[in-house]
Amino acid sequence: MVNIAVLGFGTVGSGVVDVIEQNEKSIRRRVNEEIVVKYILDIRDFEDSPYKHLLTKNIDDILEDKEVSIVVEVMGGKEYAYTYTKRALLSGKHVVTSNKELVATHGAELLAIAQGKNVNYLFEASVGGGIPIIRPLNQCLAANEISEIYGILNGTTNYILTQMIKHGQRFEDALKDAQEKGYAERNPEADVEGHDACRKIAILSSLSFGFQVDAEKIHTEGITKITLQDVAYAEEIGSVIKLLGIGKKVGEKVFARVSPVIIPREHPLAGVENVFNAILVKGNAIGDVMFYGQGAGKMPTASAVVADIIDIVRNIDRNNRVMWDVSEEEVLVDIAQTNTAYFVRVKTEDKGAVFEQVNKNFKGCSFISIEDESVQDEVAFITPEKQEKELQQVLNDINNMPCVSTIYNVIRVMKE
Amino acid sequence: MVNIAVLGFGTVGSGVVDVIEQNEKSIRRRVNEEIVVKYILDIRDFEDSPYKHLLTKNIDDILEDKEVSIVVEVMGGKEYAYTYTKRALLSGKHVVTSNKELVATHGAELLAIAQGKNVNYLFEASVGGGIPIIRPLNQCLAANEISEIYGILNGTTNYILTQMIKHGQRFEDALKDAQEKGYAERNPEADVEGHDACRKIAILSSLSFGFQVDAEKIHTEGITKITLQDVAYAEEIGSVIKLLGIGKKVGEKVFARVSPVIIPREHPLAGVENVFNAILVKGNAIGDVMFYGQGAGKMPTASAVVADIIDIVRNIDRNNRVMWDVSEEEVLVDIAQTNTAYFVRVKTEDKGAVFEQVNKNFKGCSFISIEDESVQDEVAFITPEKQEKELQQVLNDINNMPCVSTIYNVIRVMKE
Repeated sequence: MVNIAVLGFGTVGSGVVDVIEQNEKSIRRRVNEEIVVKYILDIRDFEDSPYKHLLTKNIDDILEDKEVSIVVEVMGGKEYAYTYTKRALLSGKHVVTSNKELVATHGAELLAIAQGKNVNYLFEASVGGGIPIIRPLNQCLAANEISEIYGILNGTTNYILTQMIKHGQRFEDALKDAQEKGYAERNPEADVEGHDACRKIAILSSLSFGFQVDAEKIHTEGITKITLQDVAYAEEIGSVIKLLGIGKKVGEKVFARVSPVIIPREHPLAGVENVFNAILVKGNAIGDVMFYGQGAGKMPTASAVVADIIDIVRNIDRNNRVMWDVSEEEVLVDIAQTNTAYFVRVKTEDKGAVFEQVNKNFKGCSFISIEDESVQDEVAFITPEKQEKELQQVLNDINNMPCVSTIYNVIRVMKE
Repeated sequence: MVNIAVLGFGTVGSGVVDVIEQNEKSIRRRVNEEIVVKYILDIRDFEDSPYKHLLTKNIDDILEDKEVSIVVEVMGGKEYAYTYTKRALLSGKHVVTSNKELVATHGAELLAIAQGKNVNYLFEASVGGGIPIIRPLNQCLAANEISEIYGILNGTTNYILTQMIKHGQRFEDALKDAQEKGYAERNPEADVEGHDACRKIAILSSLSFGFQVDAEKIHTEGITKITLQDVAYAEEIGSVIKLLGIGKKVGEKVFARVSPVIIPREHPLAGVENVFNAILVKGNAIGDVMFYGQGAGKMPTASAVVADIIDIVRNIDRNNRVMWDVSEEEVLVDIAQTNTAYFVRVKTEDKGAVFEQVNKNFKGCSFISIEDESVQDEVAFITPEKQEKELQQVLNDINNMPCVSTIYNVIRVMKE
């Protein structure tokens, strides 16, 4: 019998308890042990819950109970979660979490403590909800040097973009729709500004490349500026706009970024719609591998947490050697030094002049036009692939042209 | 130090040796052990190989060497591979394989022997080449009751179908093209007749549902009868034709089938092109999860084999509890009892009569027409979803109509 304690009886926490109960048979087929929820920590009371007798408000009940070998931290946030996780690991208990913020910020430290205590700190549910990605990265892909990992890491923004692309909803309406369906929070900032995707790509990059990539330092743009006109231009060139998190090995450093990207319809990520997530991994032996599924939701996330619990039960006496280092030097490449292509839309009252000047000064731009009344006073084009620094200079110059009144939007373009 | 022996120095075998050498650093990050290839068994000589000193023709050299703890069987076939695998397991050595034929046929027995000897029999590379699917099924999805697993399991046929769909190549030409590119064998039967996909769905079903599903009993159809006309009709209804392997839990039994299926373009499998494979898993907690990647090839397959080796090195002292039972009763559902819809194309000199009679006798059929000279003497339609038994009866009746000269083709249609 293995006793576990669940910290936080919210959506994921109650899902974990449900999955353990519902799938008991399937779990027993994999581990010859009964998994028992001995405590649930929450400051709330849950008078009507069938698990009322398991509830405690005191973390010490759990940490001092030698019978509890696994602590499931699904409370979220960084403060209590951090303290409790650290104390649990230091007292020799395994910890399983879905808390991406905590892993992205304190992952290196917590993993090192776990290794020192010969226990595990597992976080499959922190990225991609129920999609198995962390464990495949560690195990199945252990035989590969990973050169790049990128994908659609946030279901809310992917739902909004899908509504814009497929149903012509404006951003604001699609967001409202997502909120009504429960896909977006009332305060949607963490999703639509890209912060959630940023934490996930920080975790994936740290794991893939072996050293801590700080989320706060990753260049992050959200989707709030994307309009239906942008979507239409992308469609015109056989592409769609997706919010991508990208991590890439560049020499001994890492390039990481979260931003909308215009990608060709043929790209495997282009067909990933609604709240689905997908993560593409490039390995030197394996080539491209993609993992696809529901990136959030009570049961998918809970099932990933329970998979981690099962993994620990099967390896209760050993650390899994998952770690990443904290580098003293800056590990991130300056985004200004990296190459990309821009899609640019400028407002002008003299299209001819813009055409002429862009053509004259910036070789290799290709112009796009769509039939839409709302874009009558604008010119849109895609730049060749250049360093971001140079492209920013190009944008400055364009902005300074007398015939240009404003730059509507700039979106990166994936060229392959 | 962990010593391994590689049985078979063909494409995959030499890839395994390469991956272990090339990715030594990445491997050492995961396992604190050196992995050393001590023997390579092959009947050939390889005079010029840098690994010449490791070669042996005598399996006893390997089985009697107590220092060898892992045997990598990548020789293929069922006879020697079976004998050697069994002897290796019985002598207490772990075995890793890419041999789908052997796993599909003798999996239950070999896994039971492995469990009895407290060693592992791992076969990640047997399905989906480098795509991590077996381990996620076992571990990441352990928290789920799996209700269905299906996908594109054969790269050769997917390449051929992609050529037909995207480039208008006829089956014969696309096959020749695949052979020239090295994607298809000179004798392509195992691929194009669906046998390879059949073995893989047998393995996936056995693993997902917990009892041996015999490949020989699975209803299997290949793609040799698919024509460009079929492809055009599918396109007309916004669909594509894919060769799918399907395993599904039906009560206490399993429904399994390999056949071409017309699937909607929006389906995640529709965009899986060329030699890529993709496998969709439905779990009760996780929802739909898809795994995508190169389903074959030297390095992807070798990387899956090496991932298994690493897994064993990390768990050298224990069995992983992967097993499936051999059921005394028939586990497969009779395909005649299962529901599906058919796309039917009949040759006729009197289209009007066929329309009329089909409409009159078989309620709910929808007719499709395409603009193509080659289909002037035919009628095509999709039946409603019914038991295969009933549909076969419908086909008989259609075939017996005086106005119908022949049934060109029948392809199953995925309705959702």
